Amino acid sequence: MYSNDNYVVIMAGGIGSRFWPVSRASKPKQFHDVMGEGFTMIQDTFKRFEGICPDENIYVVTNTAYLQLVKVQLPSLHSDQILLEPVPKNTAPCVAYALFKIYQLNPKANIVVTPADHLVTNKEEFQNCIRETLFETQKKQIIVTLGIIPTRPDSGYGYIEFAEKSFGRLNEVKSFTKKPNSQKATFFVDSGRYLWNSGVFIFTAQSMINAFEHYLPSFVPLFKGDGDTYFSEKEQDFICNAYVSVDNISIDYGIMEKVENAHVLKSDFGWSDLGTWKSQNDVSRKDSHNNTLLGTHLLYDTSDCIIRTETDKLVVVEGLTDYIVAENEGVLLICNKKNEQMVKLFLNDAVKSYGAQYQ
Amino acid sequence: MYSNDNYVVIMAGGIGSRFWPVSRASKPKQFHDVMGEGFTMIQDTFKRFEGICPDENIYVVTNTAYLQLVKVQLPSLHSDQILLEPVPKNTAPCVAYALFKIYQLNPKANIVVTPADHLVTNKEEFQNCIRETLFETQKKQIIVTLGIIPTRPDSGYGYIEFAEKSFGRLNEVKSFTKKPNSQKATFFVDSGRYLWNSGVFIFTAQSMINAFEHYLPSFVPLFKGDGDTYFSEKEQDFICNAYVSVDNISIDYGIMEKVENAHVLKSDFGWSDLGTWKSQNDVSRKDSHNNTLLGTHLLYDTSDCIIRTETDKLVVVEGLTDYIVAENEGVLLICNKKNEQMVKLFLNDAVKSYGAQYQ
Repeated sequence: MYSNDNYVVIMAGGIGSRFWPVSRASKPKQFHDVMGEGFTMIQDTFKRFEGICPDENIYVVTNTAYLQLVKVQLPSLHSDQILLEPVPKNTAPCVAYALFKIYQLNPKANIVVTPADHLVTNKEEFQNCIRETLFETQKKQIIVTLGIIPTRPDSGYGYIEFAEKSFGRLNEVKSFTKKPNSQKATFFVDSGRYLWNSGVFIFTAQSMINAFEHYLPSFVPLFKGDGDTYFSEKEQDFICNAYVSVDNISIDYGIMEKVENAHVLKSDFGWSDLGTWKSQNDVSRKDSHNNTLLGTHLLYDTSDCIIRTETDKLVVVEGLTDYIVAENEGVLLICNKKNEQMVKLFLNDAVKSYGAQYQ
Repeated sequence: MYSNDNYVVIMAGGIGSRFWPVSRASKPKQFHDVMGEGFTMIQDTFKRFEGICPDENIYVVTNTAYLQLVKVQLPSLHSDQILLEPVPKNTAPCVAYALFKIYQLNPKANIVVTPADHLVTNKEEFQNCIRETLFETQKKQIIVTLGIIPTRPDSGYGYIEFAEKSFGRLNEVKSFTKKPNSQKATFFVDSGRYLWNSGVFIFTAQSMINAFEHYLPSFVPLFKGDGDTYFSEKEQDFICNAYVSVDNISIDYGIMEKVENAHVLKSDFGWSDLGTWKSQNDVSRKDSHNNTLLGTHLLYDTSDCIIRTETDKLVVVEGLTDYIVAENEGVLLICNKKNEQMVKLFLNDAVKSYGAQYQ
């Protein structure tokens, strides 16, 4: 079955602003049923690790504001398994918090870190990749990213260039590139030497602690604790204190792009970060007029649209092509699909003009 | 000032389905602030008669379902002034009910009947027309309609052809024509001999009773009562009984088109029936991109649209021209302005597919 030394850390503190107005500061994307399949992204992520480790070894790191959402959506979690960040500080502090907490409990821990809001359609293949990698990280001092074989030159994703040196499906990492321009993305995909960065990392606690000590040494005293800091009443104060002074930095930039033992597993398990309206549209079922639909609708002469309401509102649309129509908690958005990058502008203008409740 | 024999009857039982989804069976158009000016149509209609008669002489006829809406929006009304129709049966039963009730109280009553949901922008001129007409109806046995000098060949309105014979601004009526086709409407307007039918009628109780006795005699025993039927606990049962058997027929078709003493007053007081989205748009203030707006908005590259929400929802629209975007109580409508006649189809489909709550 699985080793009791296996752990999963679900990073669930983001706000998914490119997916506004569905994803909101008060209820970000990971707490929504984005695909309309009856469970939220974080519930789907949790279920994706069934059989990888005991349920009690799954930790969720999120903002304090989302404690209730996590409790309601993942009721089996013990409060010790919900790690609360007082302020968002990107992914490196998030990983450090979970890493040192788990390490206090089990220095032999072998850890998977995953975003809470990504889509995986082939769960079996995903689990094969995770198991294969956990098997390798337990034996070798390596830090592994799951890399996705790219299917198009998407300039919204991060890319990982892999080296020739390999064992099994694992290759050494040559370089990381954040969101390239589309010319570069096309070159990457055509070359066959690049993978998408899925944001799923696998490593032993010891390997990652070594990496922090080397590349982000300022993090270590903030998060190390003194052997009984975590799983005690001291934890929350200790963490508040750490987050006040810790740098706002991503795990990719702070660790992964720098470590010499980074590896990538070439994988293909039907992945999307669902980061944008378009990426959601790419993987959704369509009606016969190529509309992506969620909610209650009456459509007339309407095609190639994304139409979704979170509520039980009836949406009647006549004569619309290539638009996003999205409605959620006090905001209705109607926008050309090709202009979806303006969503961040809309969000900023909404907050500036009408207040933070529209965030 | 005014004669205590003057009465006003506000007909407020319609559901305004062409203005869906703002106008709804649960809260029709007359109970909405259609123009966004801080008062509802029925409140505006009530205020339009200040100085025409005592407030206690203003009666509202509405469906039983709207009693609370009337009480809340016109709190000065005594319950005797709110006439409740158990079922909608068009305007002839509505007029008959008010007519016989008022007649019991005051056989010398001189009555104005008006829809609750029309717009009048020049209240002073409207009052001049009403006063002038009340003065004439008190003296002569005539039934008068206010006719509006037409400004365009609108095929959504009824037309009144006037005869040469006149006194003052009052002309004898030659014929009534319900919604003509646009060719006919153009001919009507070009001829200079036709006026729009405003739906405002003025007559003495005695004149109208004579007309009912002659043209709708079956109504008389149903509504006449025995001298103490109205303003008593008998009234509601009596009316329920009357509405069970009375014919569903309009006052125009049942009386006005047939009487020989029909007259029309040529008037021009900034009138619209606000019956459709277009007619609302015609009389509304526009922003600099010719949008009619009600509610909270952020617009980008958007022109010639009608955008309204009844709630405090923020509506963000990018790249839309010539559309209606309307949101109210569980329904969002997006529709080409030129296809607004489809609104009745949408409403029917909504009810058929998803239930009566969308009516």
